[in-house]
Amino acid sequence: MSNLIQACSILFIQIAIIICYGLFTTYDIEVTASSSVSTNSLSKDTVLTYYPFFQDVHVMIFVGFGFLMTFLRKHSYTSVGMNFLIGAFVLQASILVNGFFHCLFNNSWHKITLNIPTLITGDFAAGAVLITLGAVLGRINFRQMFLAALLELIFYAVNENIYVSKLEAIDMGGSIVVHTFGAFFGLALSWMLYKESSKNHKENKSVYQSDLFAFIGCIFLWMYWPSFNGALATGNSKHRVVVNTVLSLTGSCISTFVASQILRGKLEMEDILNASLAGGVAVGSSSDLVIGPWGALLVGCIAGLISTLGYNLIQEYLEEKCNIMDTCGVNNLHGMPGLIGGIGGVISTLTASDSVYGDSIGSIFPARAGSNGRSAEKQALYQFLGIVISLAISIVGGIITGFFVKMLEKEDSKEFDDSEYWHVPKEEIPYYHAPEKKNSVPDTIIDSTL
Amino acid sequence: MSNLIQACSILFIQIAIIICYGLFTTYDIEVTASSSVSTNSLSKDTVLTYYPFFQDVHVMIFVGFGFLMTFLRKHSYTSVGMNFLIGAFVLQASILVNGFFHCLFNNSWHKITLNIPTLITGDFAAGAVLITLGAVLGRINFRQMFLAALLELIFYAVNENIYVSKLEAIDMGGSIVVHTFGAFFGLALSWMLYKESSKNHKENKSVYQSDLFAFIGCIFLWMYWPSFNGALATGNSKHRVVVNTVLSLTGSCISTFVASQILRGKLEMEDILNASLAGGVAVGSSSDLVIGPWGALLVGCIAGLISTLGYNLIQEYLEEKCNIMDTCGVNNLHGMPGLIGGIGGVISTLTASDSVYGDSIGSIFPARAGSNGRSAEKQALYQFLGIVISLAISIVGGIITGFFVKMLEKEDSKEFDDSEYWHVPKEEIPYYHAPEKKNSVPDTIIDSTL
Amino acid sequence: MSNLIQACSILFIQIAIIICYGLFTTYDIEVTASSSVSTNSLSKDTVLTYYPFFQDVHVMIFVGFGFLMTFLRKHSYTSVGMNFLIGAFVLQASILVNGFFHCLFNNSWHKITLNIPTLITGDFAAGAVLITLGAVLGRINFRQMFLAALLELIFYAVNENIYVSKLEAIDMGGSIVVHTFGAFFGLALSWMLYKESSKNHKENKSVYQSDLFAFIGCIFLWMYWPSFNGALATGNSKHRVVVNTVLSLTGSCISTFVASQILRGKLEMEDILNASLAGGVAVGSSSDLVIGPWGALLVGCIAGLISTLGYNLIQEYLEEKCNIMDTCGVNNLHGMPGLIGGIGGVISTLTASDSVYGDSIGSIFPARAGSNGRSAEKQALYQFLGIVISLAISIVGGIITGFFVKMLEKEDSKEFDDSEYWHVPKEEIPYYHAPEKKNSVPDTIIDSTL
Repeated sequence: MSNLIQACSILFIQIAIIICYGLFTTYDIEVTASSSVSTNSLSKDTVLTYYPFFQDVHVMIFVGFGFLMTFLRKHSYTSVGMNFLIGAFVLQASILVNGFFHCLFNNSWHKITLNIPTLITGDFAAGAVLITLGAVLGRINFRQMFLAALLELIFYAVNENIYVSKLEAIDMGGSIVVHTFGAFFGLALSWMLYKESSKNHKENKSVYQSDLFAFIGCIFLWMYWPSFNGALATGNSKHRVVVNTVLSLTGSCISTFVASQILRGKLEMEDILNASLAGGVAVGSSSDLVIGPWGALLVGCIAGLISTLGYNLIQEYLEEKCNIMDTCGVNNLHGMPGLIGGIGGVISTLTASDSVYGDSIGSIFPARAGSNGRSAEKQALYQFLGIVISLAISIVGGIITGFFVKMLEKEDSKEFDDSEYWHVPKEEIPYYHAPEKKNSVPDTIIDSTL
Repeated sequence: MSNLIQACSILFIQIAIIICYGLFTTYDIEVTASSSVSTNSLSKDTVLTYYPFFQDVHVMIFVGFGFLMTFLRKHSYTSVGMNFLIGAFVLQASILVNGFFHCLFNNSWHKITLNIPTLITGDFAAGAVLITLGAVLGRINFRQMFLAALLELIFYAVNENIYVSKLEAIDMGGSIVVHTFGAFFGLALSWMLYKESSKNHKENKSVYQSDLFAFIGCIFLWMYWPSFNGALATGNSKHRVVVNTVLSLTGSCISTFVASQILRGKLEMEDILNASLAGGVAVGSSSDLVIGPWGALLVGCIAGLISTLGYNLIQEYLEEKCNIMDTCGVNNLHGMPGLIGGIGGVISTLTASDSVYGDSIGSIFPARAGSNGRSAEKQALYQFLGIVISLAISIVGGIITGFFVKMLEKEDSKEFDDSEYWHVPKEEIPYYHAPEKKNSVPDTIIDSTL
Repeated sequence: MSNLIQACSILFIQIAIIICYGLFTTYDIEVTASSSVSTNSLSKDTVLTYYPFFQDVHVMIFVGFGFLMTFLRKHSYTSVGMNFLIGAFVLQASILVNGFFHCLFNNSWHKITLNIPTLITGDFAAGAVLITLGAVLGRINFRQMFLAALLELIFYAVNENIYVSKLEAIDMGGSIVVHTFGAFFGLALSWMLYKESSKNHKENKSVYQSDLFAFIGCIFLWMYWPSFNGALATGNSKHRVVVNTVLSLTGSCISTFVASQILRGKLEMEDILNASLAGGVAVGSSSDLVIGPWGALLVGCIAGLISTLGYNLIQEYLEEKCNIMDTCGVNNLHGMPGLIGGIGGVISTLTASDSVYGDSIGSIFPARAGSNGRSAEKQALYQFLGIVISLAISIVGGIITGFFVKMLEKEDSKEFDDSEYWHVPKEEIPYYHAPEKKNSVPDTIIDSTL
């Protein structure tokens, strides 16, 4: 019965969204049919410029995030399926919500125009929400996810519009507005939803095959991250984003393997799957700045190290001491590296001189354009302010959201278990022998020798 | 022995194809080396415009379709391997067959020119054939598949040339000429090949891991579908196809989750893997038309609902009452949503006014160009005629093909089982314990029965 | 303890690389920020032209090679993880080493400029090294891999610079400088590292699921190979590379299925996973030449046949008679097909006439440009010389590398086993019943205990 209500409310929301799309959105001029030849060639240009990047971001959101979360042994269906559903929903809904707040904050009311860049911003919002859900993965049901996504959308849109329109701060790769925001929102939400029974849950772990599926997600994220950071960049900036982000990611990959080996004695798949990606997050804010190839490498290495430290020490500390569980370790992959990225952005902004950027300084920092533009110091201050405000909104937003989401808790639901939501096939394994078969007798002997 | 004959006939066909390529094909002017500088820049443009879309379509055909069919627990090798072999074969062969019929229908004989768009049309033909094979998956052997593909190619080329050249009907995303055609061809073929023994076959089902592999296929199809619908679009149309298709797919994803929940009580992986994609099929024919963002969402939602209904009710009905088995449910994913798309195309065509499309109406509907062009009503009639003819050719073609394919049936072949065609490794599972181990008591009982 | 030393030496190398990047590299002019508007539009063009190809190559290196090697049943973590680590490391390091030798061989010292094409060459070097490691997969530890990669980089750079700068030979798809070089380097390395105990190792085999993971790698390699061959091509050449490579790959796919069926009685997954790709390797050197569509198909078919023969006969011969083990069969997939490609390049060069290529002959064969340019025969001779020199350097390099790598051998390490390097989860299988359950009596007993 409650399932039926849940399904119907989602259907109702979907119908409402369709109506809103009818009332409040329209094709961008380049997407319409009545346009002249010149628009036609412009549109072709827009498609060529943005579409490959959009598709890469799309892969990151739906394959990358989706499969990265399949590591839970009995929760892979829900991980990838929830990611699919919520991702698609946020892509739709955030275009409306973001558009609304954009009009509100700029006090300029017009229809929301749809083109490929709009879809990219929809994917970005989906990224933030899915990061948040990573923190509570396995511990909230579909209905709660939907409500959390719906509420987070609003806080996300408010924060993003303050950050970009009011503060005129920059954040090319979304280190702050996507990664840090999503992660701290998730931590706050997780804190609100804390239950003693989830702690050390016996199903909160991986098996060999589920980690391999997760590796698919990891690698696609790692490869396409330059497209995430550079999707909305233009001209030379786009080129710089690609070079910086690729270098940073190689750095975090290497430092993660090193740190995991040192801290754990042997490599730990959880570290590799996640901390390797920290370079992409950490270089985000400054990926379009002239940080130098060595700077990008260094940022990546540091991010990988700190992220691995997070998975080894901080995650447990948060759970034991602060009652903040973090299933996917989003604090380690998005929270702390995002802050590194934000602070890196402040430093890069502070040192961004006219001699390096020349005329292009105004295209990179819009608020510094012209003779009345901000000084480097002032811009850096606003960047810093952006970090503080984003942290505040994400944490407060997460707490408020948690308050409402907790109401939808079902008492007797199984955690970390697909069979709560899915018909799960229970079949014998094809073409396999159980390992016991060969060894026959010495089972106990083997166990004792481990 | 029969395996040897089979392999040799494929080899013979391959040699014949190479000879035909030598005699009847040539590089397109943009692909040659003798071209002037202006062609060089033109070619660069063509590569930039078509290559990313071609690769996305390629991923859909070989990863998307291939892995989507791995859901069968003991048939994953054959699913993805057959998809690989037949896809590559059709890509080659359809270029020849399509080119031949194109010359025939236009009564203009020339060498077939090869460029990236030609390869895209090859992938489209592969799509149609692989949809057909999805209907009979697990129940026909490699030899039968090859023959079916070979025969379908001819019917496909005839239909596509009538549809495009004779009727001058449009079908940007191939709702009719690819999806509906492939699905109904497959249903007719399946009806011809019906055997009582295949019904409720104990291996015609999935396991946990095989469904996860299938999800890889599902997600890649879902993400890259805009490239399928828009691969051959130009200018603003291309941009519109992307926006419409992305929106439609988010709609079908959400409505599928809702419908599966309502109809099955819990989510069913079969629904999610397939019906989520129905939005891409259904928006196909009208994806380049000005259907409005809300229209795209609505089409997607409806397609997802109907497709899920198909998996829940219609598929069983077809099997029980009509003796039409449909292993992958291609009727639900391609047949019915394709028809929705075709009808949507008729309606969109009927309402396509000069005021919305302006000068571009002639580039979208070639037959409406100029002062002597068709009226909206006439064009809609031809669109409808295109649907009827495609249905007729696909069903008749499927029946004829089934007649010949049935001759190659092997009496004692195992169905839904890779070991019929492959050396399958039969090994113990690495790093795993059998689930019985933990359940304490009955351990010994089980072990003693080994 | 030795693990700690190993990790620290990698960290030390990483720090050295960062310092070198600071001292010796700089952004390319199109990547800087101070550039004028005209550079801006140039850069945009460069990003559009190279970025999609770079990403495809990236996918081939990290998903393609990575997952293709997961076929070993207890070694999937190490396969894909090692591929990840070494790939990222070589991408970084090869840019420095290649740049150094480029300056040395041209006696022109300048900073190494970084842009997207530079990253592509980094991925190419990673390809060569990962091919090499495929030969010794499962039999060398991480430390040895790192040393081998480090040393191979040097030989690779020397060879590539001799081949391109000194001989002015061409090799668009890297048949010789990447594939043949990497493979023969690996065979020589493997010969040096030969141990009796590795022979017929009981873990040197696949299971059903590990082969499916490997299929992911196979298909992505197969699809994106045109991007590998054409990443650095320009104008019409790029278009030709795409058409030729796609056709060649369809040929090798089909001939592999045929050959595997004939030689093994049933299809063998090892053949399909690897030999299907041989067409991409074999067409490499001549992929930008006017070999004709039929020529591309023919090359692919032959390569697939020979590669499958390699997996069936030659690989065992090398192991039994020459003490050269080849875990992934890189000789069959890269070595022999690369040689076919090189020889195909010689033949195509010999027949490359001005009448076919016109003015563009100088852009394809730089040494043939102008009135003082080489004749077709002379160019073919240099091409042949390039093959001989590459073979020599790779084999000598592999032996020297093997000498040093052997020193790092650990006596008691487990081969083909992830648990040597990773914390491997040992858990019961979720949602599975052991195959024994259904058979015989105790079904009811188990059910009653659930």
